Amino acid sequence: MSVCFSDRLTQRILATKSVTCVGLDPRRQSLPQGLQPGEGASVADWAAGFETFCTEIIDVVADKVPVVKPQAAFFEQLGPAGMQALHRVIQHAHNKGLLTILDGKRNDIGSTAEAYADAYLGAGEASVWGSDSLTVSPYLGADSLDPFVAQCDRRNAGVFVLVKTSNPGGGMLQDRSSEGQSVYQTVAAKVEEFSSTRRGECGFGPIGAVVGATYPEQLAELREKMPSAYILIPGFGAQGGGAQDVLAGFTSAGLGAVVNSSRHIIFAHRRPEYADKFGEANWQDAVAAATDEMNQQLACVFGQ
Amino acid sequence: MSVCFSDRLTQRILATKSVTCVGLDPRRQSLPQGLQPGEGASVADWAAGFETFCTEIIDVVADKVPVVKPQAAFFEQLGPAGMQALHRVIQHAHNKGLLTILDGKRNDIGSTAEAYADAYLGAGEASVWGSDSLTVSPYLGADSLDPFVAQCDRRNAGVFVLVKTSNPGGGMLQDRSSEGQSVYQTVAAKVEEFSSTRRGECGFGPIGAVVGATYPEQLAELREKMPSAYILIPGFGAQGGGAQDVLAGFTSAGLGAVVNSSRHIIFAHRRPEYADKFGEANWQDAVAAATDEMNQQLACVFGQ
Repeated sequence: MSVCFSDRLTQRILATKSVTCVGLDPRRQSLPQGLQPGEGASVADWAAGFETFCTEIIDVVADKVPVVKPQAAFFEQLGPAGMQALHRVIQHAHNKGLLTILDGKRNDIGSTAEAYADAYLGAGEASVWGSDSLTVSPYLGADSLDPFVAQCDRRNAGVFVLVKTSNPGGGMLQDRSSEGQSVYQTVAAKVEEFSSTRRGECGFGPIGAVVGATYPEQLAELREKMPSAYILIPGFGAQGGGAQDVLAGFTSAGLGAVVNSSRHIIFAHRRPEYADKFGEANWQDAVAAATDEMNQQLACVFGQ
Repeated sequence: MSVCFSDRLTQRILATKSVTCVGLDPRRQSLPQGLQPGEGASVADWAAGFETFCTEIIDVVADKVPVVKPQAAFFEQLGPAGMQALHRVIQHAHNKGLLTILDGKRNDIGSTAEAYADAYLGAGEASVWGSDSLTVSPYLGADSLDPFVAQCDRRNAGVFVLVKTSNPGGGMLQDRSSEGQSVYQTVAAKVEEFSSTRRGECGFGPIGAVVGATYPEQLAELREKMPSAYILIPGFGAQGGGAQDVLAGFTSAGLGAVVNSSRHIIFAHRRPEYADKFGEANWQDAVAAATDEMNQQLACVFGQ
């Protein structure tokens, strides 16, 4: 990968005219009937179902969105068999030209953080899991982020650091303020520091931030404070954030952010408006329609 | 598992007269020569080496210590093959009567946190990975911890929440203070709140805390503020903490904490004093000697 992550993401956004990130969060009880193994199925059977489900979603959205975000937890829930499925899902996304954000919220200190960075960062043959990027948690401090930043440099990979999360309780730590700066502002300053010296042609660097759609004011504030950082915005759709809430995360050119939706797209066949129209057997059509709908809802970001 | 995690841990501590936790951090370059696959080895070959290495360590320490702590990152570094090795290492530890703390520093929000808790928490058949306990990160706030606490209740499992980590940069977030309370104190208060209403016969609950040996003053403070919580103390040995530094983490009965050492024990064959004595071919003897040495260094906790 000779092009830096932020430039690759920007190119994909411009090529697809989409800032949608499709979250691959497979859950047993929500899988389309045809992909649910029968009663007494093993975790390996479920892992096969997850893999088929995710690869078919990838096939549907590959030309519609720039990036997909597999959620590690749901694959880990199936044990080693689930991890194999995760690996193949990442590969399939790349084969279809999609970028990947592995949502693992990993981190540790020193050489252990190095191990995570080596494990996950770097598409193709560069790393064993082969993801373009990874979400990481900052609780352990700036030195815990260094190994990830170093690996981004080496392999043209990216990370998204948790800054302001979309859940109601996130403020317990993140909003704590001392000497006029909250914890999330401190993390954001670190993100900007990392990315500002690593900007690609697009003007953004490889160290991004996670900022929830459920906090539009902070999103605007953080857009301004991290001009060099891509922002991954979760909390759109099922979690309550709307198009107006995320607008502030973008530059006037419609860049600098991607908006994730998981359930609303991948389980669109369960939403009343699509269930009636397509039926569960045509769940892929519901995925396509829900993706198009979200792209349309967000098209306004390009014309700000 | 009909006995709660804290009681099981206490029983093992009393039975082994040890508060040592052996960290299973396999690293390619430090494996004994005999376990290193040749040049051009695949990740599966390395995973087999990791598995043999860890299971042999478990055989050596099973009657010497209460608990082992596999570090997920090093297994993840080998991809899906590494995850299979991790699974078998956890199983082997249980077969030998050891408790396990899976060091994964996982967390997320809502149903994703539930997926992690379901994946990892619960020995035997209760969960797919089958670990007695898991380390978790608190950056996402108290509501992100709830699913782990709920699963501890259901499956008599445990968690160790990152409170004050052993690395130099941990203070960036953890020491930030507002209204007279630092971030780590806020997290500690939450841990105590969870555990105080779930105390087993030993007097401790299943929600523990990670507090580094490198901060002995804070360790004493946190022992006092979390009387119901087991403390996992990393940073002993290779990271610089000594026996005097960790004493404050224990009650007068020598309970309430376990002290982790990874490199100093599992790679003892590389320490000059053991390399000469045993030679690399007898690396298991070096592990045994280093474990005995640490147990001796920490024996003072029982006679405080």
